[in-house]
Amino acid sequence: MIMIIMGVDPGSYITGWGVIEATGSMLKYIDSGSVEIPKGKLFSTRLENIYRSLIGVTDKYSPEQAAIEDIFFCKNAKSALVLGHARGVALLALKNGGCENVFQYSPRKIKMSVVGVGSAEKRQVQHMVKLILGLKKTFKREDESDALATAICHANNTGRVTKDIKLL
Amino acid sequence: MIMIIMGVDPGSYITGWGVIEATGSMLKYIDSGSVEIPKGKLFSTRLENIYRSLIGVTDKYSPEQAAIEDIFFCKNAKSALVLGHARGVALLALKNGGCENVFQYSPRKIKMSVVGVGSAEKRQVQHMVKLILGLKKTFKREDESDALATAICHANNTGRVTKDIKLL
Repeated sequence: MIMIIMGVDPGSYITGWGVIEATGSMLKYIDSGSVEIPKGKLFSTRLENIYRSLIGVTDKYSPEQAAIEDIFFCKNAKSALVLGHARGVALLALKNGGCENVFQYSPRKIKMSVVGVGSAEKRQVQHMVKLILGLKKTFKREDESDALATAICHANNTGRVTKDIKLL
Repeated sequence: MIMIIMGVDPGSYITGWGVIEATGSMLKYIDSGSVEIPKGKLFSTRLENIYRSLIGVTDKYSPEQAAIEDIFFCKNAKSALVLGHARGVALLALKNGGCENVFQYSPRKIKMSVVGVGSAEKRQVQHMVKLILGLKKTFKREDESDALATAICHANNTGRVTKDIKLL
């Protein structure tokens, strides 16, 4: 069975996204990118950009399922609040874009799934994402490879439910 | 000049909204309500409900401007993150619903504007909202009167920009 999976790594300035095709354990890269919003823009315009961009991706690739990183830690309540806005809008875009099921994975679970080590560094994640998907391209942003890593993690865990995999 | 103003008080379980008409200093109640989402629902479904309900209100009343409370304090990063999701989706609904300008007011500013005291209690706010708008109805939820208070505050401060009034 072929399944299109979309991974998202939301942020209030940069939001990464990645789409893969999973046929059993075979994974194929489809597309990825990032939504970057100039700092001078109004906050509500930034949220609108994230929403429109992600809706554009769901319209183009019609992913059946999506995965997003669980946020377990934030420096402080203020940064958590700001990140929450971007993440809320990203979740809404996935839902309104037809992804009925959005799964959430702990950062540790994602790293374990892609690198085999829960404490892996970002560049290791990027390296393994390229290797797994047979890519030569260099990602413009880590947010892009992080989003693909989240999608790969979901492909490897589809059908399983444990304490670090949650349906949002 | 007549202006339709919408106030929103977002929350992940209950989101209040209120619409008023301002003709100079004359304020008229148009409508208000709250979006209540059963706790058992998936988080992404809750966000979708907030978005659809608020878009429904903007479609019906076409408010030119909107106002929302600034969140200056949260118990912890986790509750700030959850509230951020709801607030992000509410802001997006206002923006996508045609409110080009969404203003943010500090809770103190809202209370000052409605009750005359920045440290007023919620029931005082509710009492004054009813008095200002000439209403006899009892609000089902405080979130509803809080949203109307935010709209009243904006009507009283339109055109001014100070440190506690921000364009979002």
